[in-house]
Amino acid sequence: MEELKISARSKKMIQPAIVKYNGLIREIEKTGKKVYFLNLGQPDIATPPAFMEAVRQIDDDVLMYVDPKGIIPLRQSIVGYFKNYDLDYDIDEILVTMGGSEAIWYTFLTLCDEGDEIICPDPVYSIYREVAKATGVKLVPVETYAEEGFELPAKEVIEKCITDKTRAFILNTPGNPTGRVYTKREMDDISQLALQYDLFIISDEVYRDFIYDGEEFLSFAAREDVAEKVILVESASKRFSACGARVGFLATKNKEVYEGLLKMAQTRLSISYVDQVGAVELFKLEQDYLRAQLDEYENRRDTICEELRKIDGVVLETPKGAFHLLVKLPIDDAEDFIQFMLNDFTLDGETVLVTPGADFYFNEELSKNMVRISYVLKQEDLKRAAFLLRKGLEAYKSK
Amino acid sequence: MEELKISARSKKMIQPAIVKYNGLIREIEKTGKKVYFLNLGQPDIATPPAFMEAVRQIDDDVLMYVDPKGIIPLRQSIVGYFKNYDLDYDIDEILVTMGGSEAIWYTFLTLCDEGDEIICPDPVYSIYREVAKATGVKLVPVETYAEEGFELPAKEVIEKCITDKTRAFILNTPGNPTGRVYTKREMDDISQLALQYDLFIISDEVYRDFIYDGEEFLSFAAREDVAEKVILVESASKRFSACGARVGFLATKNKEVYEGLLKMAQTRLSISYVDQVGAVELFKLEQDYLRAQLDEYENRRDTICEELRKIDGVVLETPKGAFHLLVKLPIDDAEDFIQFMLNDFTLDGETVLVTPGADFYFNEELSKNMVRISYVLKQEDLKRAAFLLRKGLEAYKSK
Repeated sequence: MEELKISARSKKMIQPAIVKYNGLIREIEKTGKKVYFLNLGQPDIATPPAFMEAVRQIDDDVLMYVDPKGIIPLRQSIVGYFKNYDLDYDIDEILVTMGGSEAIWYTFLTLCDEGDEIICPDPVYSIYREVAKATGVKLVPVETYAEEGFELPAKEVIEKCITDKTRAFILNTPGNPTGRVYTKREMDDISQLALQYDLFIISDEVYRDFIYDGEEFLSFAAREDVAEKVILVESASKRFSACGARVGFLATKNKEVYEGLLKMAQTRLSISYVDQVGAVELFKLEQDYLRAQLDEYENRRDTICEELRKIDGVVLETPKGAFHLLVKLPIDDAEDFIQFMLNDFTLDGETVLVTPGADFYFNEELSKNMVRISYVLKQEDLKRAAFLLRKGLEAYKSK
Repeated sequence: MEELKISARSKKMIQPAIVKYNGLIREIEKTGKKVYFLNLGQPDIATPPAFMEAVRQIDDDVLMYVDPKGIIPLRQSIVGYFKNYDLDYDIDEILVTMGGSEAIWYTFLTLCDEGDEIICPDPVYSIYREVAKATGVKLVPVETYAEEGFELPAKEVIEKCITDKTRAFILNTPGNPTGRVYTKREMDDISQLALQYDLFIISDEVYRDFIYDGEEFLSFAAREDVAEKVILVESASKRFSACGARVGFLATKNKEVYEGLLKMAQTRLSISYVDQVGAVELFKLEQDYLRAQLDEYENRRDTICEELRKIDGVVLETPKGAFHLLVKLPIDDAEDFIQFMLNDFTLDGETVLVTPGADFYFNEELSKNMVRISYVLKQEDLKRAAFLLRKGLEAYKSK
């Protein structure tokens, strides 16, 4: 029985820490310990009631398969949402997916064969790495540094990563895990390389609505030069605090790519009808809703940064977007520290959980003392969590 | 712009006819023509109200990511459903997926690397073929024949298909598109080969509850000899007429395989929470519910077979399970005939749509005059649809 083989690609895959700790936490919570979760991009903000209100109204006798592209009212609603950002898409350029994750899967499979390459920044969102292993895609990392706010290097440096196997760039702006919002300079460079070497740009903009300090919003989708090269990855999860409603989508003006993506989507017939009915209402929400979220998260960001700066030896750049930050801690082994915080540390019955940098880095050297902190809790909880982190670091160092 | 390349695997994929006609139909229905849909496995039976009743009760403030394995109440409910069939699974041997389709994706990816082989009968469920192309798996078909009720050939014939690249068999019992219910002889042969050559058995049993004529139910999952080799593919869609609720699952006692499947599932964090809450109630339904469905489909099967036998030149074997049949029509080109029925034929403003055999066959020669008929409509509609098919064939032949 022992000889049965599972695939090499499956063996290469890992449980990202953002997933791995879940089992552990359940055990720990059973002991009555309270854990502040700064490790997951799971906001504590209520899902807009419009979602469940629409769902409760469903009175179809038969819950049927629906259009693999997504139900038309949802695609219309998304088109309307885009107009707020001066992005002009037609409903037949939108493909609804089961969250942003399925969107990544289908994009990798449509653009790449086994061994083809996609260039990404290092650090990068952990799910890209696992999907790449599953689909046989090689991610080629371009190093970026905390001290430089994770700015992309000069065009010439990125250009050196391009080979005859390169098919695309994948970028996430505002970024998870970095909070980086790419500037015009960076986007110009990527676009010029995409044009020069005939590459696609996979632009994951699920955090589009979370850009702080009145910073200008720049989307690859708004650029005419690369209109045929851009594939937008989108999701309802973050912007509407609706992670459990698995609704994301892809948007592209490239018809050949769209047809390819659709063929992938047809293999699963359709995604949840009920979730789609709810999501129609989310994408229709007034801009006021998103502005209120933005204010809330900007305050949270300010709070967490202020509190973290009180800790000796912590290095961080204030991020410009999303709701994650990558922080350097005054320790040698972030994973060991996190285990300590979970298993050995407690203050008044409480502890805090963050994600090790290793989840996001190709370069292990750079990752060792880095953790990702997701500021998805209300400000008082963030203050308490940062305090626990400070006390935890003190206890850890005096072990 | 024209030079951008999408992947070869994407180019190899096709739109299965079960999907392709949808666009066409919408156009045709706009003209006021009524179409009887015998082309899709989409039953007209009401989804049990328990599903939406549970959904309407959801009062979570935040719709959160849930366990990638599936919420515990759903896995418990599934374990309970299995007990009705004397199948003994633990909740940690169940992985909830977005329909049976995602289950197929994850299984292929977990068992196979690029170029690895899975043996399947010809004809086969069309979605397997497209997922195989997307994941780089080579399906190796074993021919079966309408005249023999699609019985698997002798063990020695199947054995010849095994190479050092072979990783698994995939079988669907009761079968889509054939309605075949595998006998003990066939299952013994497959199991012996699996043991002898160390292969997995992917057993797609989504139609388990639809076995007619009091025929005995045999599951690969009930066999002790291959307990470690079996991966069950399951779905709520067919048995509970809940296709639009995208809830399927995998069940396996092989821990290494389970871990591999789970790593795939972790890349999408979780599936729809709302659908899972509804599905908890479906798998709890009394056996009476499923027995009533079985009676209904058995009557439908009898009706459609009786009506089809009235048509000159039609060849069919009465299927023992599922709700599809593969029928030989007295024509040379099923696809051309189907186009004719859609575009050129009408009787009192009505026509009928079936699926061409080409959607399911590797051997094009065998497929040319075959169509799949899904008896998913009530008996009076099936009678009318069969009548329209007869009249359509007459009109087509006298063109």
